[in-house]
Amino acid sequence: MYRSHTCGELRQEHVGQEVTLAGWVHRRRDHGPLIFVDLRDRYGITQVVFDSQSPEVHAVAEEARSEFVLQVRGVVRSRPPEAHNPELATGDIEVTATSATVLNPARTTPLYIAKEGGEDEALRLKYRYLDLRRERMQRNMILRHRVIKFMRDFLDAEGFLEIETPILIKSTPEGARDYLVPSRVHPGSFYALPQSPQQLKQLLMVAGYDKYFQVARCFRDEDQRADRQPEFTQLDMEMSFVEQEDVISLIERLFTQLCAAVVPHKRVLTPFPRLSYAEAMERYGSDKPDLRYGLELINLSDLLTATPFNVFKGALEQGGQVKGLRLPGCGNYTRKQLDELIEMVRGSGGKGLAWAALPADGGDVRSSFAKLLAPGEMAAIIERMQAQPGDLLLIVADKASSVAAALDKLRRLFAERLNLADPDLLHFSWVLDFPLLDWNPDENRWDAVHHPFTAPHAEDQPLLASDPAKVRAQAYDLVLNGYEVGGGSIRIHRRDVQQRIFELLGISEETAQSQFGHMLEAFEYGAPPHGGIAPGIDRIVMLLADESTIREVMAFPKTQQAADLMTNAPSEVDERQLKELHITLR
Amino acid sequence: MYRSHTCGELRQEHVGQEVTLAGWVHRRRDHGPLIFVDLRDRYGITQVVFDSQSPEVHAVAEEARSEFVLQVRGVVRSRPPEAHNPELATGDIEVTATSATVLNPARTTPLYIAKEGGEDEALRLKYRYLDLRRERMQRNMILRHRVIKFMRDFLDAEGFLEIETPILIKSTPEGARDYLVPSRVHPGSFYALPQSPQQLKQLLMVAGYDKYFQVARCFRDEDQRADRQPEFTQLDMEMSFVEQEDVISLIERLFTQLCAAVVPHKRVLTPFPRLSYAEAMERYGSDKPDLRYGLELINLSDLLTATPFNVFKGALEQGGQVKGLRLPGCGNYTRKQLDELIEMVRGSGGKGLAWAALPADGGDVRSSFAKLLAPGEMAAIIERMQAQPGDLLLIVADKASSVAAALDKLRRLFAERLNLADPDLLHFSWVLDFPLLDWNPDENRWDAVHHPFTAPHAEDQPLLASDPAKVRAQAYDLVLNGYEVGGGSIRIHRRDVQQRIFELLGISEETAQSQFGHMLEAFEYGAPPHGGIAPGIDRIVMLLADESTIREVMAFPKTQQAADLMTNAPSEVDERQLKELHITLR
Repeated sequence: MYRSHTCGELRQEHVGQEVTLAGWVHRRRDHGPLIFVDLRDRYGITQVVFDSQSPEVHAVAEEARSEFVLQVRGVVRSRPPEAHNPELATGDIEVTATSATVLNPARTTPLYIAKEGGEDEALRLKYRYLDLRRERMQRNMILRHRVIKFMRDFLDAEGFLEIETPILIKSTPEGARDYLVPSRVHPGSFYALPQSPQQLKQLLMVAGYDKYFQVARCFRDEDQRADRQPEFTQLDMEMSFVEQEDVISLIERLFTQLCAAVVPHKRVLTPFPRLSYAEAMERYGSDKPDLRYGLELINLSDLLTATPFNVFKGALEQGGQVKGLRLPGCGNYTRKQLDELIEMVRGSGGKGLAWAALPADGGDVRSSFAKLLAPGEMAAIIERMQAQPGDLLLIVADKASSVAAALDKLRRLFAERLNLADPDLLHFSWVLDFPLLDWNPDENRWDAVHHPFTAPHAEDQPLLASDPAKVRAQAYDLVLNGYEVGGGSIRIHRRDVQQRIFELLGISEETAQSQFGHMLEAFEYGAPPHGGIAPGIDRIVMLLADESTIREVMAFPKTQQAADLMTNAPSEVDERQLKELHITLR
Repeated sequence: MYRSHTCGELRQEHVGQEVTLAGWVHRRRDHGPLIFVDLRDRYGITQVVFDSQSPEVHAVAEEARSEFVLQVRGVVRSRPPEAHNPELATGDIEVTATSATVLNPARTTPLYIAKEGGEDEALRLKYRYLDLRRERMQRNMILRHRVIKFMRDFLDAEGFLEIETPILIKSTPEGARDYLVPSRVHPGSFYALPQSPQQLKQLLMVAGYDKYFQVARCFRDEDQRADRQPEFTQLDMEMSFVEQEDVISLIERLFTQLCAAVVPHKRVLTPFPRLSYAEAMERYGSDKPDLRYGLELINLSDLLTATPFNVFKGALEQGGQVKGLRLPGCGNYTRKQLDELIEMVRGSGGKGLAWAALPADGGDVRSSFAKLLAPGEMAAIIERMQAQPGDLLLIVADKASSVAAALDKLRRLFAERLNLADPDLLHFSWVLDFPLLDWNPDENRWDAVHHPFTAPHAEDQPLLASDPAKVRAQAYDLVLNGYEVGGGSIRIHRRDVQQRIFELLGISEETAQSQFGHMLEAFEYGAPPHGGIAPGIDRIVMLLADESTIREVMAFPKTQQAADLMTNAPSEVDERQLKELHITLR
């Protein structure tokens, strides 16, 4: 037996007992005849005292350095009152070593374990097995375990079955780019890694499984802009004989209970507010608004229909919008600060930014555009925006999507600057009624906004023939603190509807048959009405852990270049392997 | 709301209630004015009565065929006593339909759902979504869910953390053939899919996670002989500060409790018996013996050292063995039956089979070899084998491994013929003390019997230099009813030992550095003693479900040719995709 107790276990009640501990040297303080070692394992830290009165034992502590692995036998003693450490669960006791062994020495680690931060992320990823020793990463991994365990327990109790679907599946040209796996047995053929188990979970509904879930690994070979990883984990779910409301209500219960269990210091607002896609875009310029704060977009278009100011006028004449943000307390922004904002908007494709600053002392409005307006227009803007002395007004005029993009960016920026978001609030919401289809002028066909299996609203179904742009999807996004953390929909379960959608998406009958023939056929053998959702586990854990990238909640993430710096993957392989797979390098 | 109750839920207590059910038409019996439909979902079957007194409702039932999806509103009635169906949980009641809707019609299915068996497996795999509707597959999928859920609950309660490791990892030339994934971002480089998370779980021990598990998908691109699949699932586990005994005792508790919970009608013997590898080979000719029955191999070598019979003599002179099996009640085998056995042994590479049949009436021994023996040798054989009238004795003389292979095969065959294995007994056992290394004469180096990270017995460590063949591994196989259901070992945690093993395996220093450099380096930063095991979930569920292939306990298995017949994977991909991946077809 390597140990009788863990390093987090001993308390006053153990005083006098002889124990054996094993762990890492976290800190070591050499006080001459006495050496104090904080021995660490996953469960905690215990102070061990090595006394020179036992020379052999003391010699081990003299040799030991940070991160040495030690096994220590000793007696639990109460610490003198002045030496109690309230920061440690074991802080009332210490262990006086009676024998000690170095189980494994350690070279000086390239990362400090006991002290975090500062170093390059590349170094952390190269020595991930050391980075993962740190308290922060251990806390995140434990949280991730608890979150997923809670999800499984909850869904099991709700009658869901976890069913494993294959990782080696058929490549379909829809959606993002597939990772491909050449087949050795079938020369010239390839498997794909799943972007999600979408088709298979729908087939499980056709197979009558009624309530399915899977903590599913998914893969997308996309450029790793933003915070993406080549592989990620989703809570993949599907239910039969349900409507949108059933899925929404289940998910609200799941996340409300989950958060109460694993992050009890955070607050969740229930029921989760619901916004239509149109409303979310209008009020926040985003389909995943952070609702922890207001800072809503204010539409000024109707005030400015006759404005002489060319920027506003032009935008409105071309069917665009003029909208603004009111930023309390920013009326003292300098010209330099304002120019930076303008640069930021331009840098991300916006045409520009009009601004008006109201001095806190009630003096004259400074503005980039006031003198270009007709009389009364600035007053109308100030009234509509309910501007107060000290406010900064930022206004964008452009086509609706550009206005939304620019003001969403500004809204998030100022929420951070003004510290508006309560870090302990988990503000879930639903965004509903997405359009089903989006016109793709380049390819002269419709794109599926969600995916090709999403059902239209029943009452919009006639519009599929007459006005596809107006068809709303039975789709729902779960949003949390400004992040989309899950998307789902009620699916099509009838062959005729599915075929109509494929037509609109420009998928030929032949392609539909070769790529999705099994789905179309399955719908003819008694497919039940069904729907589902797939919350993204990495991002949810990231938000619960107060981290800002999903790499902090994955044990072995890859870089933005999709590389594993620890093992050096991907890497070259033998010519023999390529030959067996019937491929050559270009 | 599509339904108020499931089809398995209604009982006497619901009589008089108005309910809504949704499900599939399992069976339909048309009695003219009354049509009876057994409506099915995952939870059960409820009889619904459609009365022609409600013509609209009756019309739906007239239209409905097997596997139509119906929604039925109706009133729960008690069945007349003579119509109670004790086979159905809902058999005391029926529902009289007051309204009904066809949610989706169904064409005639290519497989009967209500009646199983008979058809080609290829048809079942092509229409897997229909095959999975059948009671047997639903039972197996539910069992699989329960088994895995139990494992997770048990390990969570034991303090294990489930940690996800990547599927896109580095290819290592060791072990079986990797599935490869070409990188788009790194031209000419490839990821591999993991054969197991072996290295990563060891690194998690170096990282201090102490107790790790993962229900892990693993991949091997091997020829699909026997009952293999390209991807399979293992309960991957690793623990720090443990010895072999700790792993064994944990696993015994896990499986004992698991079986009691999920297959309470089956018996488990505890503690699991332990055999050394040498003993298992000697007594059963197998390192995964089925211990539900005896039928042990009997060594006759020492009786025949001076035999004139060339076959025996030659084998013994070349260091081989003469061993036999005693098969009670088979003494009346005909010449034809015996020839078939001889053929079987020869067909799998054996040299042949000597036999002796003792008539049940005590008459003269019939034998293929008796007259070639020296006087007294047959009597000695009969005595050693404790042969009784009516027994058949089968004897093989060859080198030890061939004797073992032939007699293992015969032992399994006769256990089946003689019906010796109790189908409700789960006879777990441990096979221990495997050799660490196996000489590979073709490549003039040693092979790792387990894998290169397995630790030698501490007391055998000096033999690594002097006599590697004699070094025993700290490895343990979990065996159940003649199947290996899990292998594990205590691992090497010191760089010097690991390097010595790589040398013996003929891995150059350069290769060791490029392939396993991260492991060697990790061992220098405080790697704790650790070990683990990886029970194979597919096979365990197969045995618990009384199935004979793992395909019966996987939702979407592939064929022996690694193809998915339902979606038609693998398949050809676009030239554009290959171009992006920097590869061409040969």
